Amino acid sequence: MVMLPVVNTYPLSSYTFGTKEPKMEKDTSVADRLARMRVNYMKEGMRTSVEAILLVQEHNHPHILLLQIGNTFCKLPGGRLKCGENEIEGLKRKLTSKLGANSPALVPDWQIGECVAIWWRPNFETIMYPYCPPHITKPKECKKLFLIHLSEKEYFAVPKNLKLLAVPLFELYDNVQRYGPVISTIPQQLSRFQFNMITT
Amino acid sequence: MVMLPVVNTYPLSSYTFGTKEPKMEKDTSVADRLARMRVNYMKEGMRTSVEAILLVQEHNHPHILLLQIGNTFCKLPGGRLKCGENEIEGLKRKLTSKLGANSPALVPDWQIGECVAIWWRPNFETIMYPYCPPHITKPKECKKLFLIHLSEKEYFAVPKNLKLLAVPLFELYDNVQRYGPVISTIPQQLSRFQFNMITT
Repeated sequence: MVMLPVVNTYPLSSYTFGTKEPKMEKDTSVADRLARMRVNYMKEGMRTSVEAILLVQEHNHPHILLLQIGNTFCKLPGGRLKCGENEIEGLKRKLTSKLGANSPALVPDWQIGECVAIWWRPNFETIMYPYCPPHITKPKECKKLFLIHLSEKEYFAVPKNLKLLAVPLFELYDNVQRYGPVISTIPQQLSRFQFNMITT
Repeated sequence: MVMLPVVNTYPLSSYTFGTKEPKMEKDTSVADRLARMRVNYMKEGMRTSVEAILLVQEHNHPHILLLQIGNTFCKLPGGRLKCGENEIEGLKRKLTSKLGANSPALVPDWQIGECVAIWWRPNFETIMYPYCPPHITKPKECKKLFLIHLSEKEYFAVPKNLKLLAVPLFELYDNVQRYGPVISTIPQQLSRFQFNMITT
């Protein structure tokens, strides 16, 4: 038997959720977002972003924590690295900014785990691919998804303008309409892991 | 920077392809296949199958080797493990049966690499999921996909009733209609690997 990487998952109920000041989106439209991307590319070159897969369990099935903006749009916690910033440190910084309490003692000790997927943006457009397409020599963004190994108990502070949802894998799977290509294929990316469902 | 697992990929032209006697499919219809699955389940319990991702490159882009049956249906080389058979040994046996020469000296020394995906069949039906759905206590099949690390030169003997195709990732991606859910998401499964494209 080939050994599979193990992920401990704890019940959603073992985590505590509070709120904190709103974190507004930098852009109010997709067009604004792509325009800002273009300006940043001129200054800094390819955008590198890092996003986190935070796992919990309910009813013995893995769930992913997603941040919901408004009524429909969901995203993974994470964001853009600063120029030259280390991926792991940058993702910790982004996770603390998005979900950490204002009191440093309450911020989780983020354990950044396996890189499970890499997506490429060939142009200043919304479409991304899980490979850098042939003939694209200057991709505009590289986005990496990392698994986070959460401890048994954590406190998350959710910005007041966002909702934190625990979405089951079976809801994400084959649901590109609702979650987009990156998030809807997380179940496939995680299929090689063995989930150690810990009930406390 | 997080280290990514590396896969050496060699040009398609560095491999040699011959033919051998036909390997007929055991079933002539999906209904036959599901019926045989049911009979085998009664005798042996859950079916465990193993399939191989063989990578080559053309034009600096990764391609997957697929076996085509008839004019449209494509599958990965692999198959069902015998009761109690080791996954690695079973996959080597299946690869030799599907693609190895009749002369043992010409059979590749199959290097079975990472498990990249696991799919579950909850019922005696065609639909599979990249997780075991909640409330399913007796799945009917577990299928594991492994990356194979090919050497620079190999000889493959293709059964005369099959065609071996090198299909680029960009053709598989987002093409569930043509390749089905398992094969069409291989690009996502492989996105975390760094392809070391070796031109010889």
